[in-house]
Amino acid sequence: MKQTIENWFEHLQDDICAALETADGIGKFEQDLWQREGGGGGRSRVIRNGAVIEKGGVNFSAVFGEPPEKMLAALKLDKADFFATGVSIVLHPRSPMVPIIHMNVRYFEMSNGIWWFGGGIDLTPHYVVSEQATWFHQQLKAVCDKHDAAYYPEFKNWADDYFYIKHRRETRGIGGIFFDHLNTQKTGKSKEELFDFVQDVGRAFAPIYTHLMQLNRDLPFGEREKQWQQLRRGRYVEFNLVWDKGTKFGLDTDGRTESILMSMPPQAHWEYNFIPQEGSPEAATLALLKKGVDWVN
Amino acid sequence: MKQTIENWFEHLQDDICAALETADGIGKFEQDLWQREGGGGGRSRVIRNGAVIEKGGVNFSAVFGEPPEKMLAALKLDKADFFATGVSIVLHPRSPMVPIIHMNVRYFEMSNGIWWFGGGIDLTPHYVVSEQATWFHQQLKAVCDKHDAAYYPEFKNWADDYFYIKHRRETRGIGGIFFDHLNTQKTGKSKEELFDFVQDVGRAFAPIYTHLMQLNRDLPFGEREKQWQQLRRGRYVEFNLVWDKGTKFGLDTDGRTESILMSMPPQAHWEYNFIPQEGSPEAATLALLKKGVDWVN
Repeated sequence: MKQTIENWFEHLQDDICAALETADGIGKFEQDLWQREGGGGGRSRVIRNGAVIEKGGVNFSAVFGEPPEKMLAALKLDKADFFATGVSIVLHPRSPMVPIIHMNVRYFEMSNGIWWFGGGIDLTPHYVVSEQATWFHQQLKAVCDKHDAAYYPEFKNWADDYFYIKHRRETRGIGGIFFDHLNTQKTGKSKEELFDFVQDVGRAFAPIYTHLMQLNRDLPFGEREKQWQQLRRGRYVEFNLVWDKGTKFGLDTDGRTESILMSMPPQAHWEYNFIPQEGSPEAATLALLKKGVDWVN
Repeated sequence: MKQTIENWFEHLQDDICAALETADGIGKFEQDLWQREGGGGGRSRVIRNGAVIEKGGVNFSAVFGEPPEKMLAALKLDKADFFATGVSIVLHPRSPMVPIIHMNVRYFEMSNGIWWFGGGIDLTPHYVVSEQATWFHQQLKAVCDKHDAAYYPEFKNWADDYFYIKHRRETRGIGGIFFDHLNTQKTGKSKEELFDFVQDVGRAFAPIYTHLMQLNRDLPFGEREKQWQQLRRGRYVEFNLVWDKGTKFGLDTDGRTESILMSMPPQAHWEYNFIPQEGSPEAATLALLKKGVDWVN
């Protein structure tokens, strides 16, 4: 079955890249094939200087072999060969009016029989538009509800907790869904059922994001919005490098650095103690970057 | 004695700020006083848009009280009240021809009698100039040799190991000196002797950096050098957020975020898989960003 999953993820990468190129209109993905010394490899695909997407990556990988000691320690696993495959996406749009998005679907198994799925989609608007945030969460809820009514509330909270910039007391964006270590023991569902769910998450990505691209790509903006975008990109960097377990894990276990850090924005700014003016759109966005916002109701 | 150390550090901040303002000619430090809920506080001083320094911070703090659980765990200490004071500096120059610098001197003690000094100075040129790198290390060696001939080799290696961007297999810059947990047990020196050494490190900072400012501030540069500076600033961000134990410790133990992250550059860029052209000055610099370069001989 792991071959089926790997193949499906590989095709998902193709489908998403094609959909994003069409929606962008100008940007084209460039591909880097890479091999992992211990086994396996990946296809890193990077898009630069598109009409909408300034910098982004859609990466597929399938790696296997003897796990690094640090991986075993981090995952508290016994020594056994591992296999991991997944698709990972981060897109940084040129316009501050278009949100940053992240998606990941992944499958992990060990030769001793342990396996799980993980993944999620979350959105980071530079300016939060409530109707769009609600729409975004409704799409994710629909994907979840098709499989289990308990999924959305659980995975929405999980995303709130995961995408949290603790040292800023801010969420990275408006969240979405996040799940990890999903297996039969944990969920009571078969591997096939869980794979069905993960496939639906993967399929949902392109229609959701291309819709948000189209809605916002032609909105006007100026220097002020651009400056705010650069500061928010700084926060994105802070989350990914300080708190994101996936990034940390990858860098710590000698993953392919350029593929892991494709999540970095093209540029980011830091300004000491910047506080948006009271009543400004920037302050309104900040006020919504917190856990527990119920977007669907 | 801790009061003496605290006062000395506070004056060191004053002296360094004054020297930097004079050398810069335009930039002025702005001060933020802050208090820590559990005890103590600090004076954060930030300089922006100077003639030479684009963004920098010279921070003093003296905090005390009950240590956060995470601090005890990280330092493997028993529960007891703590006191910590220090001066911490990062300066990001406007010109890519002027190096970034970092300095820190600090003192830590616990009510159960444990105490130590730590600190260091390290330099991150966007373009490594060998003569200047040698001069820089000679200055640090002279400071060390005045106290103990064993200090420079030990603390130079420590800096090489500490300021290492593991996931890039690059050092952050050309290193310098780094030391931590210096106490009588470890060094055979009295607290007074160690404080003397730390004072000399603190005193060395301003003359060293203002000299490097003057040497390089008027050198011409163009778009290409500016772009390289932005990428190197990206690496600075990566080191500080992924690997720097001080930053991690501060963010994890609820330190003052804006003071900790004053080390961030004003802007940084990331470009997927950027590799400098063979034979270029950028490639020459990269080739020197490794451990174990013997700069003084």
